[in-house]
Amino acid sequence: MPKHNVGIVGATGYTGSELVRLLSQHPDITIDFVTSESYAGEKIQTIHPHLLDIVNIDLISVKEIGNYSPDVVFLALPHGVSMSFLKEHGLEKFAIIDLSGDFRFSSRGIYEEWYNKNHVAPDYMEQSVYGLPELFRHSIRNARLVANPGCYPTSAILPLAPLIKHNLIHPSSIVIDAKSGVTGAGAKPKQGLHFPDVFGNFSAYSLVRHRHTPEIENILQKFTGYSTEVLFTPHLLPIDRGILTTTYSTPKKTVNKDLVEELFHSVYEKEHFVRVFDQPPSLKNIRGSNYCDIYATYDERTNKVITVSTIDNLVKGAAGQAVQNMNIMFGLIESTGLKHIPLNP
Amino acid sequence: MPKHNVGIVGATGYTGSELVRLLSQHPDITIDFVTSESYAGEKIQTIHPHLLDIVNIDLISVKEIGNYSPDVVFLALPHGVSMSFLKEHGLEKFAIIDLSGDFRFSSRGIYEEWYNKNHVAPDYMEQSVYGLPELFRHSIRNARLVANPGCYPTSAILPLAPLIKHNLIHPSSIVIDAKSGVTGAGAKPKQGLHFPDVFGNFSAYSLVRHRHTPEIENILQKFTGYSTEVLFTPHLLPIDRGILTTTYSTPKKTVNKDLVEELFHSVYEKEHFVRVFDQPPSLKNIRGSNYCDIYATYDERTNKVITVSTIDNLVKGAAGQAVQNMNIMFGLIESTGLKHIPLNP
Amino acid sequence: MPKHNVGIVGATGYTGSELVRLLSQHPDITIDFVTSESYAGEKIQTIHPHLLDIVNIDLISVKEIGNYSPDVVFLALPHGVSMSFLKEHGLEKFAIIDLSGDFRFSSRGIYEEWYNKNHVAPDYMEQSVYGLPELFRHSIRNARLVANPGCYPTSAILPLAPLIKHNLIHPSSIVIDAKSGVTGAGAKPKQGLHFPDVFGNFSAYSLVRHRHTPEIENILQKFTGYSTEVLFTPHLLPIDRGILTTTYSTPKKTVNKDLVEELFHSVYEKEHFVRVFDQPPSLKNIRGSNYCDIYATYDERTNKVITVSTIDNLVKGAAGQAVQNMNIMFGLIESTGLKHIPLNP
Amino acid sequence: MPKHNVGIVGATGYTGSELVRLLSQHPDITIDFVTSESYAGEKIQTIHPHLLDIVNIDLISVKEIGNYSPDVVFLALPHGVSMSFLKEHGLEKFAIIDLSGDFRFSSRGIYEEWYNKNHVAPDYMEQSVYGLPELFRHSIRNARLVANPGCYPTSAILPLAPLIKHNLIHPSSIVIDAKSGVTGAGAKPKQGLHFPDVFGNFSAYSLVRHRHTPEIENILQKFTGYSTEVLFTPHLLPIDRGILTTTYSTPKKTVNKDLVEELFHSVYEKEHFVRVFDQPPSLKNIRGSNYCDIYATYDERTNKVITVSTIDNLVKGAAGQAVQNMNIMFGLIESTGLKHIPLNP
Repeated sequence: MPKHNVGIVGATGYTGSELVRLLSQHPDITIDFVTSESYAGEKIQTIHPHLLDIVNIDLISVKEIGNYSPDVVFLALPHGVSMSFLKEHGLEKFAIIDLSGDFRFSSRGIYEEWYNKNHVAPDYMEQSVYGLPELFRHSIRNARLVANPGCYPTSAILPLAPLIKHNLIHPSSIVIDAKSGVTGAGAKPKQGLHFPDVFGNFSAYSLVRHRHTPEIENILQKFTGYSTEVLFTPHLLPIDRGILTTTYSTPKKTVNKDLVEELFHSVYEKEHFVRVFDQPPSLKNIRGSNYCDIYATYDERTNKVITVSTIDNLVKGAAGQAVQNMNIMFGLIESTGLKHIPLNP
Repeated sequence: MPKHNVGIVGATGYTGSELVRLLSQHPDITIDFVTSESYAGEKIQTIHPHLLDIVNIDLISVKEIGNYSPDVVFLALPHGVSMSFLKEHGLEKFAIIDLSGDFRFSSRGIYEEWYNKNHVAPDYMEQSVYGLPELFRHSIRNARLVANPGCYPTSAILPLAPLIKHNLIHPSSIVIDAKSGVTGAGAKPKQGLHFPDVFGNFSAYSLVRHRHTPEIENILQKFTGYSTEVLFTPHLLPIDRGILTTTYSTPKKTVNKDLVEELFHSVYEKEHFVRVFDQPPSLKNIRGSNYCDIYATYDERTNKVITVSTIDNLVKGAAGQAVQNMNIMFGLIESTGLKHIPLNP
Repeated sequence: MPKHNVGIVGATGYTGSELVRLLSQHPDITIDFVTSESYAGEKIQTIHPHLLDIVNIDLISVKEIGNYSPDVVFLALPHGVSMSFLKEHGLEKFAIIDLSGDFRFSSRGIYEEWYNKNHVAPDYMEQSVYGLPELFRHSIRNARLVANPGCYPTSAILPLAPLIKHNLIHPSSIVIDAKSGVTGAGAKPKQGLHFPDVFGNFSAYSLVRHRHTPEIENILQKFTGYSTEVLFTPHLLPIDRGILTTTYSTPKKTVNKDLVEELFHSVYEKEHFVRVFDQPPSLKNIRGSNYCDIYATYDERTNKVITVSTIDNLVKGAAGQAVQNMNIMFGLIESTGLKHIPLNP
Repeated sequence: MPKHNVGIVGATGYTGSELVRLLSQHPDITIDFVTSESYAGEKIQTIHPHLLDIVNIDLISVKEIGNYSPDVVFLALPHGVSMSFLKEHGLEKFAIIDLSGDFRFSSRGIYEEWYNKNHVAPDYMEQSVYGLPELFRHSIRNARLVANPGCYPTSAILPLAPLIKHNLIHPSSIVIDAKSGVTGAGAKPKQGLHFPDVFGNFSAYSLVRHRHTPEIENILQKFTGYSTEVLFTPHLLPIDRGILTTTYSTPKKTVNKDLVEELFHSVYEKEHFVRVFDQPPSLKNIRGSNYCDIYATYDERTNKVITVSTIDNLVKGAAGQAVQNMNIMFGLIESTGLKHIPLNP
């Protein structure tokens, strides 16, 4: 079978290097090109020395991609840059999987409000499909533009969607208390991400105004049909990788622990990358892998449904999910090239 | 002024060594004795080498304390052992500040249910005063038995008490999502606390059944007069010291961000160890110190009051608060010997 | 091609679970059995939850291995237990790759001196081949008993062997200053490995008497023919995985930076798992992978050759190298099933 | 007794905030002013929130210091900036304790070679006294300009000086393998100090060309009279604070373990801040304190003297030592205001 060609735009960041890690060993894929404006002309190991002697890639400028004929292009670009790329290149020459937030909303209004930017390619917003395979597999199959989900939304939507969809909880007043490793904030040095500032530390940030709030609400609503309202509080964990998300919600009807657990087992039984745990999961059990582990329970005393879910923010929360989407678009088995076993301990 | 004599029962654990750290430089105190059953007869630096050349203490067995005449004895003992000590020694010879959970409840029922133990000294439960100075300063002054609060309860009660007391939030359906460093689990090696198991990891534990749940509810109720119900979820942070607690609650009446902030500023204005922050606090800002930092805000969109609070679990969450209680009992200025500046970075 | 059958004795530890991680996705291997005395009869995910839904292995007791016909058995056992296994099972039914220190020496004298134990199966010591493929590939091919190297020795011998073999340095007075993550000390909880004791900490240990000293000296001597003497000082890094080893030695003749660098490039050019770096390597560049990265330089001012090398102690320092040895024994391409890309960041 | 007035120039960095931590609770000191060019006019808690409600300092510009009459000024400035300050302000109005490297050498040649800068105030180099009290206490007493030692040199010179001075080791061919926490590299964000780049990582850097090399050699030579040559290799530890330094040297005459240990005990017996350990020390035993812990031993097998020493790089390696120097200059007891007990765990 001839291999599929893919291009990666933006190699400098963590998402770019994870895409190279995953795609360079994917059995059905050839990496056509990887771009970097700052390092065009250099080898990829200049920026990512761990790839030395493993992949042999000469970085190019995005201006040169006209010389290539990829089937799919991954955009590992900052918010705001992806939309310019879409505006310039469109979707005719290749399909696009965009890892930024630029196409996760169907209309520009919410985007512009929460991202505080004008959208320069709003026409593509409607065509984009939200790339969470467990919820939107069928639309992804034929998509030309996939908006790869945010890391926090992936970790929150997977446990909440079944509860709302199956009418178990009130879709308003959901509390999402999420904790993420620092790679979620990107590869660029900043004061708040300076090693001594984070080491041995822990803090909440962006209270009540994090951009992932409307993403979670919109997607839950789109999938379940219920108008959803969440209070989302992110925290910064002093580790490199991983998100653990705890949610609290109120049942709509009489539930019990077994009922809640069974729902998750039945909904996710056939999913390759969602594992339903019988005890609270921990981050190391999914490190480096594409798994989302979910534990759900019910507290009779306070009448609350509680879920705890974990993902590697760079894999299921970014590059891994992007490859999963690509597999679907290419008609490959969804787990192809994604069977990495979690690195534990 | 003659110094006060104090004894410390239980030197092996983290609370014991923090008590020595704080009391050995307290200007008005003499450490009369420190006990350790496993190391009686040895120098304290055998177990705590960081104290070498700083304090010169020969550990004794608890059997020898009859030879001493302390004014106050600190019990840095496991749950279940303190009550035996009380049963044997009573309160006539010295006052007691107990750092275990044995005397935090006024009646044996709840204790026995949540700690899964018979209480052998229930008569003392009624006499005990809950040692949270910001709430119960007046009772502490004349107490013979102070039950030093749990670390999680300290971090949760300080932000919640004003909200309930001043009728701002519904005292039921409060969600407490707490995250603690590993010293909170004690000095004894266990699989789940083995370095490679915790490093780079993060997890929730003891969902819906952690012993600090009834402690938080009881004390809030005792202080505010309102029957209180909380859902408490602890998480294990991969760091040594510090607790950050995030709470979510629903307003009882119309509130706004300013109103919430002002309440905290006015309630805690004169407190030496509660600092009201205008931005979410972080653990390093209180490391090694007796401060509790609190940030409180209101989310109009979801109509929730949110608080984020931080303490060093070994100081304000244990040994520091115990010394604060002792200062009150001795009629000293409450901050004496406790003005350690947080170690940051 | 029919697959090779392998057995793993000892599943509880880190080496056992790494073997499962690597072997369960090896294309030419079937895992015949995995033993655990404490968990026989249970699923492997009981002890290693990260393997849930990935491998489906029922743990057996070592007493049941007579029911299986493996080609190779991996012993992931403590020092002292492997030799009893050899004594009982011999080498006729299957070849053995032993990850303990029991068969790394050719004679019992040194073993008994440094391990402080009687050797119960000394006859097998002579037959064993030291499983460092880059040095002893040809002997490994036909070995029935492979003694998989210690993690520190792997990290020290790979940079030192070329220097001694090619007569560049004096084989005495070599200083080896090594730093290892905590998984090197095993999965069993101990006070010195308790999370709060290690977090934010760093220390040297086992000065002048670590067991890996004679292993390094013996193997270097066996490979180079020169009598070798090293001063080896291990340190405990507050991380989970990885060893970085710095060595200092005195040139035997006139050398320069280029000469030293070229030696390493030429010696290791064709090696799949040794990467020669032009800058000091760092642990994250090899995390989770079978690579050993080496940087070597020369300081004219003090006339010293310096090397810095890195490995993942659980992969190239244990399970990965064991699989590499197995590949050689089975006549497979040496890198089969071992091409994991380092997990960075 | 009237208090001494001190000024701090440069509040933004870690050294500046440590000086404030130590001096604000020093019983004999008044902080006259603290400068910051970026934050002049703001409260110090704007940059250092952990100081909220503890110190009440309005930051001023360095241009305003003419309005104050400090006895001593601490320069917590980058290398190259201190010398301009000296050039402008001289030493008549106040004595200076400089925490940069600008005045640690007696002549400009070495400085300019290793720091790659012209020295603009070379006349002051001769007047400066190297502020390592254990070696140069008498000169410090009357100094107007104290060059506070580098952190690595402090950790290396304290164990090496007695060995060379007492003729126990050859002063050439000393190997210094040092490991430092990240605060040693300063508060300014850089790629190599970005949290995800350092977390779980470890690396050597600046091999054979670190600026602290000539500082160590010069000071050892000045103190002992022997021409000294060291090979110094620094490594970056994934923690915030602390330096552990391991040294290897060859005896000049017949020595043994006892002899080496006794030397250290006798040399440092009366020192308040040097503790001689009978086992290898660890970083947490000195965290936040001004102690330097030293362990020294001898390996008969390889005929090497080994030392392991630890300091908190921000305290004994910077701000604490600066305050110790100040105490000497003011004729105070040397340990005044510096008796912080190490924060362990």
